[in-house]
Amino acid sequence: MADQYAHNPADAGPPPLPVLRWEESPDGPVLVLLDQTRLPAEEVELVCTDVPKLVGAIESLAVRGAPLLGIAGAYGVALAAARGFDVEEAAVLLERARPTAVNLGYGVRRVQAAHRAAAESGADARGAARAALAAAKELHREDAQASTRMAEYGTALLEELLPGGGLRILTHCNSGALVSGGEGTAFAVALRVHRGRRLRRLWVGETRPLLQGARLTAYEAARHGMAYTLLTDSAAGSLFAAGEVDAVLIGADRIAADGSVANKVGSYPLAVLAKYHHVPFVVVAPTTTVDLGTVDGKAIEVEQRPGHEVTEVIAPNAPAGAGGGLAVAPLGAQAYNPAFDVTPPDLVTAVVTEQGAVSPVTGDALARLCARSRQVTIS
Amino acid sequence: MADQYAHNPADAGPPPLPVLRWEESPDGPVLVLLDQTRLPAEEVELVCTDVPKLVGAIESLAVRGAPLLGIAGAYGVALAAARGFDVEEAAVLLERARPTAVNLGYGVRRVQAAHRAAAESGADARGAARAALAAAKELHREDAQASTRMAEYGTALLEELLPGGGLRILTHCNSGALVSGGEGTAFAVALRVHRGRRLRRLWVGETRPLLQGARLTAYEAARHGMAYTLLTDSAAGSLFAAGEVDAVLIGADRIAADGSVANKVGSYPLAVLAKYHHVPFVVVAPTTTVDLGTVDGKAIEVEQRPGHEVTEVIAPNAPAGAGGGLAVAPLGAQAYNPAFDVTPPDLVTAVVTEQGAVSPVTGDALARLCARSRQVTIS
Repeated sequence: MADQYAHNPADAGPPPLPVLRWEESPDGPVLVLLDQTRLPAEEVELVCTDVPKLVGAIESLAVRGAPLLGIAGAYGVALAAARGFDVEEAAVLLERARPTAVNLGYGVRRVQAAHRAAAESGADARGAARAALAAAKELHREDAQASTRMAEYGTALLEELLPGGGLRILTHCNSGALVSGGEGTAFAVALRVHRGRRLRRLWVGETRPLLQGARLTAYEAARHGMAYTLLTDSAAGSLFAAGEVDAVLIGADRIAADGSVANKVGSYPLAVLAKYHHVPFVVVAPTTTVDLGTVDGKAIEVEQRPGHEVTEVIAPNAPAGAGGGLAVAPLGAQAYNPAFDVTPPDLVTAVVTEQGAVSPVTGDALARLCARSRQVTIS
Repeated sequence: MADQYAHNPADAGPPPLPVLRWEESPDGPVLVLLDQTRLPAEEVELVCTDVPKLVGAIESLAVRGAPLLGIAGAYGVALAAARGFDVEEAAVLLERARPTAVNLGYGVRRVQAAHRAAAESGADARGAARAALAAAKELHREDAQASTRMAEYGTALLEELLPGGGLRILTHCNSGALVSGGEGTAFAVALRVHRGRRLRRLWVGETRPLLQGARLTAYEAARHGMAYTLLTDSAAGSLFAAGEVDAVLIGADRIAADGSVANKVGSYPLAVLAKYHHVPFVVVAPTTTVDLGTVDGKAIEVEQRPGHEVTEVIAPNAPAGAGGGLAVAPLGAQAYNPAFDVTPPDLVTAVVTEQGAVSPVTGDALARLCARSRQVTIS
C-alpha cells in the first residue's frame, strides 16, 4: 500500500481522500461520494443525482461515520433544493436513513432551516437553493476545522495523561478522513501523534461485522505510513493483559446529555477492558455529536442491522451469497447484530471536542462545551 | 439446517458426527477425520495414512479442540506403530504440531508409553502396535465418558448457581462433539440444559479469526434443534449490558496449576465482561486439560498464528487470496494473531471436570481433582 504514495515528499503526506464533493455537472448538480464499501480493494466514486440514491448510499454504508453523515445529509437537502425536489420530504427521508448518528439529523435540519429562512425572507426557489448549498458548505468547512482542533486538544490531553515517550494507541472502527470533512476524530488525534513522531503503534481492531477497521482504518494508516497492526476485536484483551495499550481512542455516533457514548459495537467491551486495566479510554467527537435532547444512554436508539452481515462476510470482491456476501454460518442461522453499543460516562476518561476536552465526563461539563460551540456558530 | 434431521424422532436427536475413527482398510490401517475447515458447507472426510498427513491436518485445524487433539495424537502414535514407522519420531512430530493444547502431548505420550511398555515386556512390533492402538482406543472411550460426566456436573453447578427458570448461556469458539470423543465440554453442558428444557437461548460468539463459533457451534446447535443466536464477538458486550446473559460457558486448551485458563482468543475479554456484570464464568474441561507442570498463566505458551488469518477471511468456498482466503485488509497489512488468551483464576467462577467442579478455583482444589482422576485411571 505504501508504495503508491512513495512519490510524495515525506512531510507532505498523501493527497486528501476524495471522500465527498459537490459538483456542478452539465446535467445539473450532483453529490459525488467515495464508495466506502469497495475499499480497500478499489477507489470507486458514486454519483448521487437525487436524494433516494443518497439514502441508498447511507443505508448501504457507502457513506458512513457520524460527522460525514451530517455533511452528506446537509448536501442532500441542498441537492433536493437545487434540483427542484420537495425539500421537506427529502429531509424526512434523509433523517430516517440511519437512526443512531445524531449528526445526520443535525446536518439535515441545519440546511433545511437555511432554505426555509431564505424562502421566508422572499428568496425565489433558486435563491433558497443557493442558501441551502451555502449552509451545507459552511457545515463542511466547520467540520474540517473541527477535525484540526480535536487533533490539537486530543494530543494535548494525551500529553497530560501520558507525558513523554511513545504511545501505543488502540482504536476501533474508522474515524479518519473517511468520516469527516477533515482528517477525522479519533484517527486525526493518532495521526497528529504520528506526525509528532510519538506514535509507537496504532492497534487497529478489525471491527466485525463490516470490518471498517481492517478495510478503512488500515487503509488510512497505510496511506500515512503509520506504524499500525491489525487485530481481531477479541485479541484486544490479550494486548491489554500484556500491557501493550497506553490509550484507547474512539469516535462517537451520539453522546447523550449525561455523557453516555453510542459508538460502533465493540466500543463498550473495550471500555470495560480499559477500566479493568487502568488504561485511559478517550472519546473524540465534534460537539455536533453531543445530543442534549437525549437524556441518557437508555434513551439512545441503537440501530439493529440485518443478520446476514454476521452470517455472511461482506467484503470487496466477495462472491455473492443470499445477503451479498460469503456464507460463514449454517443456512438459516439467526444473528443478533446491533450496529452500536453504549458506554456509560463512568467508563469514559475524557471526551475531546473541537471546543476542548472534558474529564471527568459529566452532563454539566458537556453542556458548557456545547453552549460555547453554539456561541461560536452564532457569532 | 434443521430439516435434514426432521426424520429423527424428537428424543433421539441427530446421528453422531463422524468426527474421527480408526479404520482397517485393505491397504492398512488409517485414521479418518471429518475436515472441520469445510464445515458447515460440506462434510468431507480426510484419510490419514501416515503421521505427516495427520500433522498437516492438526496444523490446518482440520482436526482441532483440546480433547480431540489428544485423541488424534494418540491414534497418530498407534498409526505410526501399525504401519511400521518410527514411533518415537512420530511422537515428536505430533507433539510439536500445536503448542498450547496440553491434551495433544498427553495423548501422544500415553500411547507412546503403552507401546514402549509392550516392547520392553517382550512384545514384537505387531504386539506393541496392538498395545498402542488399545491405549488410543481406551483414551477415546474415557474422553467420551468424561463428556457425559462433565455435562452432569456442569448442569448441577448451573442449577446451584442459577436455580429454576430458563438459562441464557453465552459460549465462545466450539466445544461440542467436534472437539471430543463424546458430546464435548462446555457445549455438552448447554446441550444437557437444552435436553432438560431449560435452555432459553444459546448465544454463540462467532470467534474470529477462524469463525469456529459461526461455522461449528452454530452447526452443532442447529443439528440438535437448540434455540441459538449467532453474534460477532464484540456484540457480547451489548448482551451483558442488557442483562441477557445468565452464564458464560467455555472450554479450555490448558489449565495451569494455579487455575489460569488458556482458551481460544476472546475468552479473556468475556471473563472481564462477566466479572464486571456479575455473571458466572464457567470453564468446562477434562482433567487431562489441567497441566500441573505449568506453574501459572505466564508459563503457558500461546501459539501465534499467521497474520493472513486476520487480513483474509478464510471460509468454506472462499476464493483463494495469498493466504487462501478473501482479502479484507490492504495488501501488506501486518496482523497480531494470538490463537489463545489466558484468563486468571480470579475471573473464573468454576472449573468443571469429569471428576467434579471446583469453585473457587484454587491450585489446591485442582490438584485434588487431578489426583482423584489419576487414581481412577490407575485402578
